[in-house]
Amino acid sequence: MFNLLKTSSTARRGTLKTAHGDIQTPFFMTVGTVGAIKGLVPDEIRELGGQVILSNTYHLHLRPGEDLVEKAGGLHKFMNWDGPILTDSGGYQIFSLTGIRKIKDDGVEFKSHIDGKKIFLTPEKCIEIQQKLGVDIMMCLDECPAHTADRRYIEKSLELTTEWARRCQTFASRKRNGRIFAPQTNGVKPHLFGIVQGGMHPDLREKSAKQLIEIGFDGYAIGGLSVGESNKLMYEMLDTTIPHLPKDKPRYLMGVGTPENILEAVERGIDMFDCVLPTRNARHGYIFTSQGIVRLKKSEFKDDFTPLDPECDCYVCKNYTKAYLHHLFRAGEILSHRLNTYHNIAFYLNLMKNIRKAIEEDKFAEFKDEFLRKYVS
Amino acid sequence: MFNLLKTSSTARRGTLKTAHGDIQTPFFMTVGTVGAIKGLVPDEIRELGGQVILSNTYHLHLRPGEDLVEKAGGLHKFMNWDGPILTDSGGYQIFSLTGIRKIKDDGVEFKSHIDGKKIFLTPEKCIEIQQKLGVDIMMCLDECPAHTADRRYIEKSLELTTEWARRCQTFASRKRNGRIFAPQTNGVKPHLFGIVQGGMHPDLREKSAKQLIEIGFDGYAIGGLSVGESNKLMYEMLDTTIPHLPKDKPRYLMGVGTPENILEAVERGIDMFDCVLPTRNARHGYIFTSQGIVRLKKSEFKDDFTPLDPECDCYVCKNYTKAYLHHLFRAGEILSHRLNTYHNIAFYLNLMKNIRKAIEEDKFAEFKDEFLRKYVS
Repeated sequence: MFNLLKTSSTARRGTLKTAHGDIQTPFFMTVGTVGAIKGLVPDEIRELGGQVILSNTYHLHLRPGEDLVEKAGGLHKFMNWDGPILTDSGGYQIFSLTGIRKIKDDGVEFKSHIDGKKIFLTPEKCIEIQQKLGVDIMMCLDECPAHTADRRYIEKSLELTTEWARRCQTFASRKRNGRIFAPQTNGVKPHLFGIVQGGMHPDLREKSAKQLIEIGFDGYAIGGLSVGESNKLMYEMLDTTIPHLPKDKPRYLMGVGTPENILEAVERGIDMFDCVLPTRNARHGYIFTSQGIVRLKKSEFKDDFTPLDPECDCYVCKNYTKAYLHHLFRAGEILSHRLNTYHNIAFYLNLMKNIRKAIEEDKFAEFKDEFLRKYVS
Repeated sequence: MFNLLKTSSTARRGTLKTAHGDIQTPFFMTVGTVGAIKGLVPDEIRELGGQVILSNTYHLHLRPGEDLVEKAGGLHKFMNWDGPILTDSGGYQIFSLTGIRKIKDDGVEFKSHIDGKKIFLTPEKCIEIQQKLGVDIMMCLDECPAHTADRRYIEKSLELTTEWARRCQTFASRKRNGRIFAPQTNGVKPHLFGIVQGGMHPDLREKSAKQLIEIGFDGYAIGGLSVGESNKLMYEMLDTTIPHLPKDKPRYLMGVGTPENILEAVERGIDMFDCVLPTRNARHGYIFTSQGIVRLKKSEFKDDFTPLDPECDCYVCKNYTKAYLHHLFRAGEILSHRLNTYHNIAFYLNLMKNIRKAIEEDKFAEFKDEFLRKYVS
């Protein structure tokens, strides 16, 4: 299901087959946490060259609930997107959003961040939810410990994450009357990815990777990075983890990151990314451009009648000036969120397109240098 | 510049020529107060059959300022809309938004609702601002007294409004070296409309209309309605005012209203409308449909997999269910505002399209009855 087409040094260009179409790697997934991208319709993601939307198991479980989504005909139909969907398991959200929680061997008990209702999530339940949502790529339930946690805690946490991963895989592969029970769309069953944890300890990362590979997954994610540690440390963790991952499976760096982070990770052999940066920053007036970040709020843009990014040909850059977008941002208009988001997504998806092209032409290193030379972060 | 094509009883179907194209009447103007429709791009207004966008002189004067907009190449270019634009004078906003104000013979002194800065607006300044914005239809500065004000106050207020209207017209028609100074686009100078006031007093309404007609305007607006009075009283005011307005000029009922209000007013011979209802209500989850208002928040829509309006073929109704839109509304997603707004605007513009068709076929009364029979308000 993963086909490695080409490499440029250790950067990889491939194809990932899913029930809702083939995805060209490396790719960036636009975040639509609750089954909606903040301000954009899925048709616009398609128009911008987006291939995959990421949604969140934890959020959708709380609201509107997987049973409702199943009744609606699945998440694709519910949100009007017929391309591939990956759902994060929600492990990260449970550990970052919910205050009181109890980790048990069985699963995790926590309070809903919406209404405080007590909820118990097991690895099995987590897979069942994702199956009901009908997504293309499911993630295992994991514990994402703080990067400042002590080694003892991370060791214990890793044991749990591995055990949960095993249970997720068992549940996802369960058979009934000798046949695989997992739902299939277009003859393809959903992929299940394991998540490598281990904090900032190279040996624990290695251990985690090996344990997951032994269980066997359709792809391997690296979790617990970009959680407050330095870029240098993040790259070190990638350097120590990636060599332990199989070459014939897709590699997903979760929740990362800035354009620089993405380039560094692609260079190290990562195939998949997701991040709230382009969408969230857009709403705060942080615009990604080929020349670096434009902070729209600044009064210097009051009478700047040039587009956000001279090298971008998206709808926003073709039709609006910084002066107008500055005005909308200052006035707190909803349209500001929408247009800024549209451009930022265009920028990220365009970056990925250029990355894929550069790898195909075996010029990734040159592309990266050229990009970072202009991009002042 | 106004061409009356057809009547159906007293309902009128015509064409209003402007520098940015002909407008088919009766029409509804989507509100874009600060030079932006809340959540939508002008291209979408066009796609939905919208002909005119309304913006606000007061708001644009405060931010970003008419000089900036002029430097940007005018409001059309600034906001990316090449169709006609009407700007409300801001009189209404000054009297409803700003706390402390002093009305002087010269003009009105008030404090900006944004930063409290003291601002003095004269009739001449008001026209100058609109000329700098480069709009197609300008409105005179008027005073809009509370409908509960006593007759003495309204009489005095009306004197001022008439005097200001005269000064607006004088300023707009001013000549330099024997030539009209007003800016022209495509050989057409902007239209200037007078605003009939007079509170809820038929004789003052009549007096106001006659005074304005004596001054002479390109069109006549009826202001100070839909400000808290009953529908019955509003219709009575229309009944007593409209007969005093010239047949060969467009008639604009400002800030009105619900679908019922629009039908009643068209029946009485009104040609132009604007209102925040479709956009503002959308954000509060009040959806206009052929069967009446749908309050999206209601839990009955949680698992309603039908479109907002079975008779609507807009993008939202074609691609999304009430269940999904209910979910977005409950989750407070920006996309909720956008999709609800899109549908509500589609509904209003479609209503106007059907009204125009019904008048053309001389079936307006039947259309109105049929519409209101289904529309449960």
